[in-house]
Amino acid sequence: MKKHHYQLADLAQYVNATVVGAEDAHIYGLASLTQATTEHLSFVNGEKYLEQALQSKAGALIVTEELFQLLQSRQTQELKRHYLIVQQPYAAFAILTHIFEPKHTQRGIEQTAHIHDSVMMGDNVYIGHHVVIGKDCVIGDNTIILANTVLGDGVRLGESCWIETNVTITGRSQLGDRVRIHANTSIGGEGFGFAPYQGKWQRIAQLGSVKIGHDVRIGSNCSIDRGALDDTVLENGVIIDNLVQIAHNVHIGENTAIAAKCGIAGSTKIGKNCILAGDCGVTGHITIVDNVTLTAQAMVTKSILKAGSYSSGTGLFETNQWRKAIVKLRQLADLPLTQLVKRLDDISSQLQSRK
Amino acid sequence: MKKHHYQLADLAQYVNATVVGAEDAHIYGLASLTQATTEHLSFVNGEKYLEQALQSKAGALIVTEELFQLLQSRQTQELKRHYLIVQQPYAAFAILTHIFEPKHTQRGIEQTAHIHDSVMMGDNVYIGHHVVIGKDCVIGDNTIILANTVLGDGVRLGESCWIETNVTITGRSQLGDRVRIHANTSIGGEGFGFAPYQGKWQRIAQLGSVKIGHDVRIGSNCSIDRGALDDTVLENGVIIDNLVQIAHNVHIGENTAIAAKCGIAGSTKIGKNCILAGDCGVTGHITIVDNVTLTAQAMVTKSILKAGSYSSGTGLFETNQWRKAIVKLRQLADLPLTQLVKRLDDISSQLQSRK
Amino acid sequence: MKKHHYQLADLAQYVNATVVGAEDAHIYGLASLTQATTEHLSFVNGEKYLEQALQSKAGALIVTEELFQLLQSRQTQELKRHYLIVQQPYAAFAILTHIFEPKHTQRGIEQTAHIHDSVMMGDNVYIGHHVVIGKDCVIGDNTIILANTVLGDGVRLGESCWIETNVTITGRSQLGDRVRIHANTSIGGEGFGFAPYQGKWQRIAQLGSVKIGHDVRIGSNCSIDRGALDDTVLENGVIIDNLVQIAHNVHIGENTAIAAKCGIAGSTKIGKNCILAGDCGVTGHITIVDNVTLTAQAMVTKSILKAGSYSSGTGLFETNQWRKAIVKLRQLADLPLTQLVKRLDDISSQLQSRK
Repeated sequence: MKKHHYQLADLAQYVNATVVGAEDAHIYGLASLTQATTEHLSFVNGEKYLEQALQSKAGALIVTEELFQLLQSRQTQELKRHYLIVQQPYAAFAILTHIFEPKHTQRGIEQTAHIHDSVMMGDNVYIGHHVVIGKDCVIGDNTIILANTVLGDGVRLGESCWIETNVTITGRSQLGDRVRIHANTSIGGEGFGFAPYQGKWQRIAQLGSVKIGHDVRIGSNCSIDRGALDDTVLENGVIIDNLVQIAHNVHIGENTAIAAKCGIAGSTKIGKNCILAGDCGVTGHITIVDNVTLTAQAMVTKSILKAGSYSSGTGLFETNQWRKAIVKLRQLADLPLTQLVKRLDDISSQLQSRK
Repeated sequence: MKKHHYQLADLAQYVNATVVGAEDAHIYGLASLTQATTEHLSFVNGEKYLEQALQSKAGALIVTEELFQLLQSRQTQELKRHYLIVQQPYAAFAILTHIFEPKHTQRGIEQTAHIHDSVMMGDNVYIGHHVVIGKDCVIGDNTIILANTVLGDGVRLGESCWIETNVTITGRSQLGDRVRIHANTSIGGEGFGFAPYQGKWQRIAQLGSVKIGHDVRIGSNCSIDRGALDDTVLENGVIIDNLVQIAHNVHIGENTAIAAKCGIAGSTKIGKNCILAGDCGVTGHITIVDNVTLTAQAMVTKSILKAGSYSSGTGLFETNQWRKAIVKLRQLADLPLTQLVKRLDDISSQLQSRK
Repeated sequence: MKKHHYQLADLAQYVNATVVGAEDAHIYGLASLTQATTEHLSFVNGEKYLEQALQSKAGALIVTEELFQLLQSRQTQELKRHYLIVQQPYAAFAILTHIFEPKHTQRGIEQTAHIHDSVMMGDNVYIGHHVVIGKDCVIGDNTIILANTVLGDGVRLGESCWIETNVTITGRSQLGDRVRIHANTSIGGEGFGFAPYQGKWQRIAQLGSVKIGHDVRIGSNCSIDRGALDDTVLENGVIIDNLVQIAHNVHIGENTAIAAKCGIAGSTKIGKNCILAGDCGVTGHITIVDNVTLTAQAMVTKSILKAGSYSSGTGLFETNQWRKAIVKLRQLADLPLTQLVKRLDDISSQLQSRK
């Protein structure tokens, strides 16, 4: 099997780079500075990676003009290295990852897929093995659905969506264009709606749906439940990592990023351009405004009405020290803390006045 | 496609309501006060929703007699609105959700399902595409199993169960009647049982099973492991949200509710009628008695032997303020906190006595 | 159906035990002391289980010589009980679980599986119903892949692997020998790599893979993402429970154990022989050295450079008491805590000097 490669000059065109070195150098892939060999292109993301860059065996480097000068001045050995000079090496690298990504080129519908007669199927789609698509679904052009995924009745996918394996989309969910859903995720499942009645939990049927905008990304093993009456909504550009729980009737604003293991409880509204680090928990029926950042494991129990960064948790202790701190925290509960300082002040002034 | 509708009087019968307005008004669906249009029925869940009710475009409202009077007195515009008058609008709404829920009417076994010859199949079941059912399984009457789900050997499902897509049930698990399992959940998987031996982890084969009672509900992407020797047990009426971990040999008492992202470690016993809010963690080999409530993210490291509400965590801080609090918490570990007050008292009394 | 059984003497051979009682006693299974009946073998894991052992109906017990003597001296009723005498009853039990575990004996490839022509298939494999295996995959001898699992292009599995149902393995992941992957887990999915650009999130294609060593165990509903450029790596002997998130480029050292619901963010390196209890969160781009233990819900935001045990969290409070403690923690942020003691000391010495 002949390995595919690019010429350096071709790659330069994608990122408006100036080539220093051989324009026809063969580049077989991207790699990190530490793992790259002579057939790889790597990138230097600022001066702090200068030493790594000098040590790197990469055949070519993406650098700024300044980094190029620094490297030239310090490169002691004779190393036949080529350069792509750009203003933002990381952004250039990000663009080039798409060039080297293996593409899914198959199109058509596998014979083992089971598709209801009423489905409106777009052009140039790929529907993988054992995919099941229910009644009245609509699949946009160029959308790819990988093996063993199931779409319940009435689901609509836009154009150029990428739906991986073993995914479930149900509850008449509607997805926009260029939505990417990773493996084993469940979208449109029944919200956790129960009312206590005569000592038992009575299920409330969940009649809403899920509306997902364009360019949304949802990781693997996520649960995005459908609304009770109204819909659960993810606006355009929302990105979600793995193992995330979005409960019924949650509304997530544009371009908000949610890291792995977060959970958002029912009917909560999160604004635009928020960032939730890993494992945050947000209670139900509250509002978080735009441009809020939550650090990892933040516990949000009330609305956040002012943009900014918020945090929870005790930080990490050595376990022995932690036990002591926790004992003190318990004592603290019943301690008149703010009075302590006042009392000290009082005593000090009494002592002062007696001098 | 003609949209299905009900007459208001028909809906009134399901909830013993009095109709005020046109008994033959057409109701096409339920909706929230804010999203409802003239073809929808909505409900007013107490006086605090009065303004929303006045603004709502809902064609009909479920209200109490009192709310009806209040609305009548304040409704300024001429609005042709109908009412269902009941004692508990929310309970009435909960019942009516089931009327409007789309029903799964298909019955039979899809040709692409693969079912072992030894399976005892009940009447009136539905077995979806690409479902695999192993040796010696028993499927109760009226049970529905959706596409791409797999049942390992010896699994038993009761009557009228609802098992969604891409579910795995294995480990000879036994489920009662009317159990609902949502997408991508794994039940009966091997418990995490390892013993350290000569510097490595030796796997302990998990010989127990999972016993699930009647009317249990388990959300999507959950893991309910089988027991090591004895069984993991979920009693009747337990309800579980998404992304929940139930380890081997856990026992959950009747009607206990467990919200998303909770985890219960091995051999722990949780009582009846408990409520675990989102993302709680309960350590292994402990007991929690009946009627315990845990607030979100509670960390339980010891048995809870008294009913009540328990909590953990620091709450949310602005990040800068949080950093300061955490520094103080570290200092606290080594501070003779309870002595501070005593010493202050001593000093005060010394000062007093010298006056 | 005739139930399978062993003679006690046969079991004794597996664990080098001395039989006291009937060598030809029939043992039908293992059971816990409390659940065992006369046809079961149980084990006594130390003196603290002596009472349970005395009460147990187990037909045979695995015990030490000391426990045997104690039991003999206290056994009042005439109970026809047999014994296996060993040095480590728990280790003997662990070995015997494998004898009683139901074995998967089927071999071959189910007709409903869809396997690309280019796949290199080992001998003596089992490939279940509706399994899909992509281009250029390699499956080692004796490997078992259960129903509805999907392997993307270029995935390699070693020998004697056990891959359960509804699993996804993609991103050209490479697994060693004797790797066990439980249901609904996703391995090799795209890492959560996005760069902000002009107010939107630009996806960075993830070009790395996942490398998994020998004897690795991964639970159900886990997400193990592939690397951005370099690989995500799990070394030999790593064991992982359910619902765990391993982000791109994470490196986990040999024999490290990770309990349920943990999350490790991108590019973090965890050493050998570490133990992460349930629901720990580890931030990205840090290092944890060998032999570190994290207690449940630990939040790691900085590198841990010294072996030992580390903890986070407030512990559990009654909710009312918790509210009071949290108020105090907020006050603490702005309190000159360490000065309090100094001031007290100053005042005390002032008072002293005036006496």
